[in-house]
Order: sequence, then C-alpha cells, then structure tokens
Amino acid sequence: MNDDIKNFIIDRMSRSPYHQWLGLELADCGDGWVEISMPWRDELISSPEPPTLHGGISAALIDMAGLSALRAAGAQPAGTIYMHADYHRAGRPGDFLARAEVVRVGRSMGVADTRVSQDGVLIASGRGGYRILQE
Amino acid sequence: MNDDIKNFIIDRMSRSPYHQWLGLELADCGDGWVEISMPWRDELISSPEPPTLHGGISAALIDMAGLSALRAAGAQPAGTIYMHADYHRAGRPGDFLARAEVVRVGRSMGVADTRVSQDGVLIASGRGGYRILQE
Amino acid sequence: MNDDIKNFIIDRMSRSPYHQWLGLELADCGDGWVEISMPWRDELISSPEPPTLHGGISAALIDMAGLSALRAAGAQPAGTIYMHADYHRAGRPGDFLARAEVVRVGRSMGVADTRVSQDGVLIASGRGGYRILQE
Amino acid sequence: MNDDIKNFIIDRMSRSPYHQWLGLELADCGDGWVEISMPWRDELISSPEPPTLHGGISAALIDMAGLSALRAAGAQPAGTIYMHADYHRAGRPGDFLARAEVVRVGRSMGVADTRVSQDGVLIASGRGGYRILQE
Repeated sequence: MNDDIKNFIIDRMSRSPYHQWLGLELADCGDGWVEISMPWRDELISSPEPPTLHGGISAALIDMAGLSALRAAGAQPAGTIYMHADYHRAGRPGDFLARAEVVRVGRSMGVADTRVSQDGVLIASGRGGYRILQE
Repeated sequence: MNDDIKNFIIDRMSRSPYHQWLGLELADCGDGWVEISMPWRDELISSPEPPTLHGGISAALIDMAGLSALRAAGAQPAGTIYMHADYHRAGRPGDFLARAEVVRVGRSMGVADTRVSQDGVLIASGRGGYRILQE
Repeated sequence: MNDDIKNFIIDRMSRSPYHQWLGLELADCGDGWVEISMPWRDELISSPEPPTLHGGISAALIDMAGLSALRAAGAQPAGTIYMHADYHRAGRPGDFLARAEVVRVGRSMGVADTRVSQDGVLIASGRGGYRILQE
Repeated sequence: MNDDIKNFIIDRMSRSPYHQWLGLELADCGDGWVEISMPWRDELISSPEPPTLHGGISAALIDMAGLSALRAAGAQPAGTIYMHADYHRAGRPGDFLARAEVVRVGRSMGVADTRVSQDGVLIASGRGGYRILQE
C-alpha cells in the first residue's frame, strides 16, 4: 500500500477533534480496507452497572472506519450519506478494533462494511454510504 | 404525562457518563415521544474547516432519543438492537434538538423514529430497534 | 395537488410490469405524500400456514411508495440508492395500503418514509434514499 | 455440510409460493452460508427502457438468502425483523446469484449479509436481522 495514501488517511482521521478525543489510531491498512484501534475511557459508558460501551461510539467507529476504507481504495469520500449499525454484544472496558472493507466504489457514492470487535469477539457491525468526489 | 415516567426517563438518561459528557437534557416529552436538547462542544467536531458536527454524535442522539421515547410510551427498553441514520445537512456550532416518536411497541422489541434539527432545520434523521423487557 | 403531477405519478408507476403484477394503484396523494393500494394474490405468500405476506413485497411497497412521494414533492427521483424495512406484524390475505411521506429533498438525493398497513394496523415501515436528477 | 440441513433449507424455501414464482433454487451451501440462484422473468421489470430489475426483487433475495444462511448455520430463524438493501448497479435480463453469510447468531436474533450479483458483478447488497427460536 502506498505510504502517501496511508499518511493521507492518518492525517484526515486525526484532524477531527472527536477522533482525537476518542484516541483513534490507524492500526493497519491495505487496498480497500483499514483497521482502526480505540482505547477505553470512562466517558464512553452507556449503562454503568456493569460499564457498557455506548452504541453511539460503535456507530462513530463504523462511520469513520468505512470512510477511511474508501480512502484506502483511492477514492475521495466527502461525507456520510447514511449509516446502519447492528449491536451484537455489550462492549466492556478495554480496547476495540474496527475493521472496514469497501463493498463498492461508484461514480458518486461508495459503500463500506465495518466490524467492531473486542478481544477478537464481534460486538457490533454495520455499513455506511458515502458521497464520492469526482476527480 | 405521568411525572414518574418523566423522572424515570431523566434518571436513566443522566446515569450514562457519555450522556453527561454530551450535556443531554430532556426538553419535553409526552405519550410515546421525547425531545432531547444537546449543546455544542468543540470535541464534537468532525471536519474543522468549517466546524461540522460528527455523524457519530447524531447517531448517538438518534439511538438514545428513540430509547427514551419507548420509555415515554411506558415500555421497558433494554438495549439497542440496530440503528439507522441519514445525514441531511451539516451540523454547525450551536444547539441541537432530537425529537423521537415511537413507531411500534411489540412484545419483544420496539421501534422509534428520531429527527435531529438545528435552528428548526432538519440535519439528520433515523430510527432504532430496541429490545423490550416483558413485565 | 396539480393533476399533471398526479398523472405523472400514475403513469410512471404503471409502466413497471412488476407494479402491474402487484396490482398497485394510487389511492390518494398530496404535496410530498402518496398512498398506494395493493390487493392480495396467492403468489405473495411467504409461509403458507397461515398465509403470510412475503417481506420482499412490503420492501417493494416501501421502495416504490417513497419514490412516488418524491415525485409528489415535485422532485425527479432517478432510482433507489438504499432501502430499510422493519417488519412489525404478519400481513394476511386482504388489502394493503402504503403511505409515504418525504423526509428531505436535497440537491442530489431524497429520503422518504413509508408505513404499510392492513385494516388500519401497521404491519411494516421503512425508508428509502433516492437519487435526484437536477433540473 | 449435513444433507438433512440442506434438504431442510430447500424444503422451507420451496414452500413459499413467492419463492416458487421467482424460481429460486439453492445453488450451493455450506456451514453458515448459502448461494441462491434466480432466473429472469419479464414481470420483474421496474423501468422498461432499458429493462431493469425491480429493487423489491433484490430486497426479497437479500431477505430470503440471509434467512437460509441462518438455517445453514443450524439456527432456527422464525421471521425477518428488519432488512437493509443497497443498490449498486442496475440488474438486467439474465440470471442472478445471491450469496448470504451469517454475521452473528445470538440467543434471540441472528444477522446475515447478502450480496446479489449478475455475471459475477455485484448489483445489490444488504443485510437482514431475524428472530431466532430457542431449542
């Protein structure tokens, strides 16, 4: 994978104050896919007993990882059109990994699937549709 | 609307550290609907130029407002099964209002629609499906 | 509502052999909304005991009614980008009514919500996102 | 893969008059996945010039293939809770193949992803959530 694209993905991801607050990092990437890591912080809790990851955080991961996967496919995504998330298991205090893969890059929009896991176990999955800029 | 249900909605919503961090407040509610307000904070920014609300925040509002609407219908939601969000316009620094209405309360799950607006203009909308506990 | 738009909706809907096979008719319409009726036929059955409407038929109604609602708002939808359907109750032999309302018409896409009912009871609901042609 | 499960999938799929009308056949299957084939028929047309597959048909394929994939994982799906479909390219007169894979089988619900292709090219994709019966 081209280092320019990798640096472009990291640069764009880290420009967002929300991504900085979440502590997102590019763990790995290749042609049309990325893996994004996220550490725990107590502000992410939905229900406190026992502490559970808020669904809006998994949604943010799915949104952002899918957009980055489109960048890893050489496309220029310009914003999210829609997002769908399924919640499979409760996320607990610990590290998270979101792996996104491109499903389709069209002329004006792209779609990517994302799976969010913790300790190798799937906790959420979903997909996003994104506007694509023409070159 | 019964004050017990209103206080129950506020109590449950404010138990979540993520909701506290977002500054969510119950603005109004009635039978099967709620309105939740959210102030701005700079950590919510997705793209900085110009500052744009992150899609994951709208998703969190849709997730949580829909769940609260089910409580306002007297149901006992126990978690989100899935969530869908459409992004209509960019959110800018300022206040947000999420209005959620119940679509259907079944035996084991419920569905609610939510619209997120800013200054009366729709910026995002979507729906969530939630597990319902039997009494 | 302009008769030209109404006739345009009917003309476009009836051009589709699948819509003809389903027996779809425009029951009513107004600014940004339509109601489409569909009769029963035994080929629509998913599970035979007892006879249940196939989910793909409700999905087709949601897809098509939403697209027609965009026409009823004066927009020119050019195809479906995505569709989401929730199944609330089993549909039984009898008549169905799909009511669709526009959520948002943007420059390049539109979104509409649809509710499918039988004898006044909601059996399915959902939304579609559609490509919009520029004038 | 156990022949009993394969025959069970075929038996359940062919019980539906709508599946019979669509001409669906189990092309292949394995642990947690199925491939379903569908021939063309002119009643499936959405827009006639040029003839285009109706989105409701792709939706029916996604709905049904995902449910069958859960059966291929040994689960007992009892109905569709929701369905999401993305439309990537227009389907044309010819044969279609829907490949569905299980994402997650939980205690009370399951999720499966489906890709619909024609001549090896992806035309639609999506996922369904299904109620699972306890043994």
